[in-house]
Amino acid sequence: MSLTVFGSIGRDDISTPAGSVTGVVGGSAIYFSLAASLFTKVRLAANIGNDFPDEAFDILRQRQTDLAGLQLFPDKKTFHWSGSYSGDMNEAETLATDLNVLTEPPLVPSAYTDSRFLFLANMAPETQLQILDSFPNSIVFADTMNLWIDIARPQLEELLGKIDGLVLNDGEARMLSGEQNLIVAGAALQKMGPKFVIIKKGEHGAFLFTPEERFGLLAYPISEVVDPTGAGDSFAGGMMGALAAAGDLSAKSIHRAMAYGTVCASFTVQDFSVRALEGVSMPEIEARYQEFGEFLSFSEDFACR
Amino acid sequence: MSLTVFGSIGRDDISTPAGSVTGVVGGSAIYFSLAASLFTKVRLAANIGNDFPDEAFDILRQRQTDLAGLQLFPDKKTFHWSGSYSGDMNEAETLATDLNVLTEPPLVPSAYTDSRFLFLANMAPETQLQILDSFPNSIVFADTMNLWIDIARPQLEELLGKIDGLVLNDGEARMLSGEQNLIVAGAALQKMGPKFVIIKKGEHGAFLFTPEERFGLLAYPISEVVDPTGAGDSFAGGMMGALAAAGDLSAKSIHRAMAYGTVCASFTVQDFSVRALEGVSMPEIEARYQEFGEFLSFSEDFACR
Repeated sequence: MSLTVFGSIGRDDISTPAGSVTGVVGGSAIYFSLAASLFTKVRLAANIGNDFPDEAFDILRQRQTDLAGLQLFPDKKTFHWSGSYSGDMNEAETLATDLNVLTEPPLVPSAYTDSRFLFLANMAPETQLQILDSFPNSIVFADTMNLWIDIARPQLEELLGKIDGLVLNDGEARMLSGEQNLIVAGAALQKMGPKFVIIKKGEHGAFLFTPEERFGLLAYPISEVVDPTGAGDSFAGGMMGALAAAGDLSAKSIHRAMAYGTVCASFTVQDFSVRALEGVSMPEIEARYQEFGEFLSFSEDFACR
Repeated sequence: MSLTVFGSIGRDDISTPAGSVTGVVGGSAIYFSLAASLFTKVRLAANIGNDFPDEAFDILRQRQTDLAGLQLFPDKKTFHWSGSYSGDMNEAETLATDLNVLTEPPLVPSAYTDSRFLFLANMAPETQLQILDSFPNSIVFADTMNLWIDIARPQLEELLGKIDGLVLNDGEARMLSGEQNLIVAGAALQKMGPKFVIIKKGEHGAFLFTPEERFGLLAYPISEVVDPTGAGDSFAGGMMGALAAAGDLSAKSIHRAMAYGTVCASFTVQDFSVRALEGVSMPEIEARYQEFGEFLSFSEDFACR
């Protein structure tokens, strides 16, 4: 089934305990697309500037990504982010953010608007609302961040009333709901609109809240985390891609989709930028999915007393 | 099978966002015993003083706990701890610790020494080593804390060479191994001696490392955490109790034991002190164990593609 993503593509400068890179390919939409396109055809929409990295084109084309929504601004620069990780690397310290082309409204190709699934990566809620108007029949999941919770809460709350699923990290879930306990936070966020709430907890995994159940999943254990940038977007991409491939929102489909998202994120963090994710093959994804099952003991250890 | 625990019983003053209590029953050994005795007969050893809370006797007797190892010091006071929790309650701020009777060597009843399983709760590694000498044929698991990693590392390292299993929290695992990544830390701790390493991550669950596998388990989701004190000791108690009941260290037995430990801890945090744990029944434990399975989707969601 068709999946459209709106988000950012940019250039990142990243420093972690494992090393530093500058000017590498980054942004939510590229991590999302690379992960999602392992499972389904992806339609991508993002604003780019005159310094858009050519290699990003090549990477996306390799995965047959639909690039009709790439909007070039020849007089502007591409989004740029600079960040640093230390300690357990669960959170980046942002050193610089240059929005550049991200202040421009996105292009919405009419050919995208019949997509069965739509993902709105982190961006101004007002922009997310504008895009949403063109996708009246899509199943819509969205991400957000602390900045918008802080400065654009009314628009964010309007958005929450119109989307099917919200994907956000634990800190954002606490901030948006005003609840410290993540189980309470998840339920509070559902009351704000979305039937499905997914709270990402980095190395600690993710929680899912649906009208029928709560579900928890650990992260796949990685002993050599090189660069956590894009892990959350890779998780969302793998999950939405697997969901679009399944074509439904049954508990079974969502559980599996979250596990695939987890596996995609586990590859992402093993190298800087999209290096690991761009090279990974579906057989490698499937092999790690099986290993992940063993780590979680999907076996009958518990059930067959 | 028989299970002996050495640890502390004390009086706690606890402040959490849900309220405050003073002089309540506390200490590692009482949480451990109450959880473990749901599954097996427990032999308890702890030093107590002249202000030992009578209700603790009653609570322990209700669960048929063997109290031959309770050693009364009539001229001294019982161990006392005062702590405060805020925010996500993942860590306590210690306000006061009065060791009192804990500075005295423990009593080791000879009738305890044929125990198949021995648990050495957090105490000076030198004391743990002394106790160990009396249990040459037991399967031994031990806990520790940052204080001993800091001031008694040589003795702690000697202990690690002599025990079968180490149970500690994530911060302690990082500190003791010198590794930030918990997967690397777990493997590094195994190299220091114990075949089995269990890293407790509070609300985020626990990791298990054995010679054959790594295994991860989330915590049971609790929306009303009243007091996290004793959660880790309840986890260890439930786990060791279930292991002693199973009588072996197979992967299946350990996985189930960790799930039972998780369920015990989830009851502990729902009220102050041992209030929830002392009242819980085995049918309630079993019912939540089943719910926990649903939360983790022990079902065939993943495996039967």
